[in-house]
Amino acid sequence: MSDSENPTARKKRGGRRARQAAAESAAPSAPAYITRAIPEYELLGEEGLALIEKNADAILAEIGINFQYPPALKLFKEAGAEIDGDRVRFAPGMCRKIIRDSAPREFEQKARNPARSVMIGGKHTVFAPVYGPPFIRDFKEGRRYAKISDFQDIVKLAYMLPSLHHSGGTVCEPTDLPVNKRHFDMVYSHIKYSDKPFMGSVTHPERAEDSVAMCRIVFGGEFVDKNAVLVNLINANSPMTFDESMLGAAEVYARNNQGTVISPFILAGAMSPVTAAGTLAQILAEAMAGMAFTQLVRAGAPVIFGTFASSISMQSGAPTFGTPEPALVLNGAAALARRLGVPFRSGGSLCASKLPDAQAAFESAHTLLPGVLAGVNFMLHAAGWLEGGLATCCEKLVMDADQCGMMQVFAGGFDLSENGQALDALREVGPGGHFLGCAHTQRNFKTAFYRSAIADNNSFEQWQADGAKDAAHRAHELSQKMLQEYAPPPLDPGIDEGLRDFMEKRKSSFADASF
Amino acid sequence: MSDSENPTARKKRGGRRARQAAAESAAPSAPAYITRAIPEYELLGEEGLALIEKNADAILAEIGINFQYPPALKLFKEAGAEIDGDRVRFAPGMCRKIIRDSAPREFEQKARNPARSVMIGGKHTVFAPVYGPPFIRDFKEGRRYAKISDFQDIVKLAYMLPSLHHSGGTVCEPTDLPVNKRHFDMVYSHIKYSDKPFMGSVTHPERAEDSVAMCRIVFGGEFVDKNAVLVNLINANSPMTFDESMLGAAEVYARNNQGTVISPFILAGAMSPVTAAGTLAQILAEAMAGMAFTQLVRAGAPVIFGTFASSISMQSGAPTFGTPEPALVLNGAAALARRLGVPFRSGGSLCASKLPDAQAAFESAHTLLPGVLAGVNFMLHAAGWLEGGLATCCEKLVMDADQCGMMQVFAGGFDLSENGQALDALREVGPGGHFLGCAHTQRNFKTAFYRSAIADNNSFEQWQADGAKDAAHRAHELSQKMLQEYAPPPLDPGIDEGLRDFMEKRKSSFADASF
Repeated sequence: MSDSENPTARKKRGGRRARQAAAESAAPSAPAYITRAIPEYELLGEEGLALIEKNADAILAEIGINFQYPPALKLFKEAGAEIDGDRVRFAPGMCRKIIRDSAPREFEQKARNPARSVMIGGKHTVFAPVYGPPFIRDFKEGRRYAKISDFQDIVKLAYMLPSLHHSGGTVCEPTDLPVNKRHFDMVYSHIKYSDKPFMGSVTHPERAEDSVAMCRIVFGGEFVDKNAVLVNLINANSPMTFDESMLGAAEVYARNNQGTVISPFILAGAMSPVTAAGTLAQILAEAMAGMAFTQLVRAGAPVIFGTFASSISMQSGAPTFGTPEPALVLNGAAALARRLGVPFRSGGSLCASKLPDAQAAFESAHTLLPGVLAGVNFMLHAAGWLEGGLATCCEKLVMDADQCGMMQVFAGGFDLSENGQALDALREVGPGGHFLGCAHTQRNFKTAFYRSAIADNNSFEQWQADGAKDAAHRAHELSQKMLQEYAPPPLDPGIDEGLRDFMEKRKSSFADASF
Repeated sequence: MSDSENPTARKKRGGRRARQAAAESAAPSAPAYITRAIPEYELLGEEGLALIEKNADAILAEIGINFQYPPALKLFKEAGAEIDGDRVRFAPGMCRKIIRDSAPREFEQKARNPARSVMIGGKHTVFAPVYGPPFIRDFKEGRRYAKISDFQDIVKLAYMLPSLHHSGGTVCEPTDLPVNKRHFDMVYSHIKYSDKPFMGSVTHPERAEDSVAMCRIVFGGEFVDKNAVLVNLINANSPMTFDESMLGAAEVYARNNQGTVISPFILAGAMSPVTAAGTLAQILAEAMAGMAFTQLVRAGAPVIFGTFASSISMQSGAPTFGTPEPALVLNGAAALARRLGVPFRSGGSLCASKLPDAQAAFESAHTLLPGVLAGVNFMLHAAGWLEGGLATCCEKLVMDADQCGMMQVFAGGFDLSENGQALDALREVGPGGHFLGCAHTQRNFKTAFYRSAIADNNSFEQWQADGAKDAAHRAHELSQKMLQEYAPPPLDPGIDEGLRDFMEKRKSSFADASF
């Protein structure tokens, strides 16, 4: 008797079906990350890339990198590097070999909802929100210091935006909480208000330990040791320096098999030479030295080659964004990471504008698209960045996410199937006709074109009747509507309680609140 | 005795030098056009491109193209095509062969100032302003019909903006002049207020003849017959149709050895299939048929493979811009043009926004950059487009031109010279230092980074003190300042008089003004 003719089995399957349906309704409606079907755009050929690699090797051998952290100096000494005070010099090829011997080409960052886990590396691209801004631009009140409630709003929006694959890290600084305790609330907010993957604290090794401990409560200790559940931003103190707190945090994460992004942080002209090729050699040298450190801490720990690239105004020294020079640098860095065999991280919606205006959009677009075409794997600040990273706002977040959605479609490339070729439509319609009602259009119209959540494509008259709003205004309305409609993803009450207990105990161990 | 020791010769040379210096001071400060040092980005490989070519051949052979112009039908019949009413069907490869046999791979469009002449094709990119809008968005008054004074303002701004290489054509519709006479004033304005290359009228064969006649007055008849001094926009009436007025104008220009852009005008989903590959095959078929026509009129006449690609909202039918699908189409069309061996034209700053806001900027950036990376040779609407092409404004024009300037730098690629590699700077500064004052920075700071004319990179406090203006506001101030500072390029008074006489006589031959 076949299963389908057994009433009991049918009933059971009905139960499974119901559970499956419930699970599906809670499952993401969009892919958890992008898998690019398009080729990487490479500006530097073999000769150019080899030249940059040679120059990076020269920097590592002749100039060296400062590691302001004795445990790092010890590890490098044991590995055969030349130590002179904080300065570490590497024989040509040494860092490259350490990285190639153990760093994974790509890895999965697990989310607490397995359907949200992301692949980092290879042909994959993951978009994460803005990281670090102390200010919020409130649509009505204007610019002010960010609070934990703002942090939670951004986490909620990033959770709801299908084109953002990641919950990020310090999506803004909750300045209403003490500096030495706010990392608990940040990590907890990512877990509580989202089920997408997220980032841990890097401002102190102890805060990194706390981040890992909280993940153990969520995922279990053994799982954490075997899987990357955190990806963490380790900035170099460019030029050619890594400081103690960043290295200490990197050490904690690598030891726990958690992901790190080793990111030269470059305002070219100040922290690197004014030329793209010079900047690129420095970036490669810094990134390789930092990545080698993680591999010496724990061979095989997931690590990402990071690049934050900007230029400065040579008149005022102010950082500038969306200019052509950083786009060149980014393109080269992505290619160098591919040659090295590690995932690559860039910035996303970078801009200097104080408002979500045309400047913000131009600059963001000219960071986002070059990054995607260069083949970025992990794009931090993909949405919500304003004012050189000092501020964020919900409006820019949803605007940028809309652009990220377009990137997903673009990265899908051409559909060359018979349906994609559409010769039947061309034959049906013929010269002088229109395609609106033809069978092929009817078959495909639901998925035919990207539908922007922000753009107004109506007639001038309709737009005027709708209040003549600009994009920022529409983005404001959308973000407010989303926050009203927000519903949290389910979280096991035992885990929630465990996290709250842990935080309470740890917080009470600090004598004074320090803001 | 060497020339330099002969006082008379020195004196003479002094005179030459003075003249040369004077000429140089009047010469453009920026390159007349871009020569891209970066590779073209190609999304479709050999297999994909060959498939599209096969499908285009199938469209031309099985479905055919309507040519609503008896002289075209006659030419095609003589060339061996199959004629059925207005429908022309071509044996596979026929159009391709006609084009390859005579159409130039690249050509120079001469400007009346030889230093402004532009190369169209190959690795070159030429940016031209917006074409066609009947409305102006006045910064203070809002949207209104455009006038000849607006036309002249845009010509003046395009003349002054170094990143725009071309004066364009119908930069806006001067609706205060009669329809049957306004082409005289448009062509005259391009000649009078700019010395960059420009476009002629295409709305009627007689107006095309008038445009050529005015060029003969400026350049001389023999020069015009031997050189392209006009490039003219011939839109297909997609799908698969060319109408009488466009073909008549194209015939006039080709016969006079002037350039044409044969442009399928596609709102995908309405005028082509909803898929990129289907749209692309149609574009190739239409463009090849139109280009073949020009070569049958006069073998060797300069012709450009054009593409205007947009998608539509499947909810409202409204055209949408800056979306990923048209970027794919454009990328494929550029590659197909290269394989065919002809220059390629795309759109530039396309957007649906009614304002120069974030929507406008996002959409424009996601048209401009993909076009440049695809290797576009002639980019129409590179600056000043608003509201689906229905409107323009001075603010968007200068904003977009700023982005075009960035494209010029990006297209320059990496400087891999010793100075570009900057190892001396890295050695001088070392770990923990800064590059602001090092010798390499001092040597390079003037040309180090692109300087935006619009972006505000100042601190929040400085920006606030400056009036908390958005980019549109700053662009308004810049455009007004430029118009105040505008000084016309010299124009031979005899030529000016000749043009005025010609226009007066021709205008008086029309009995009635028709608006």
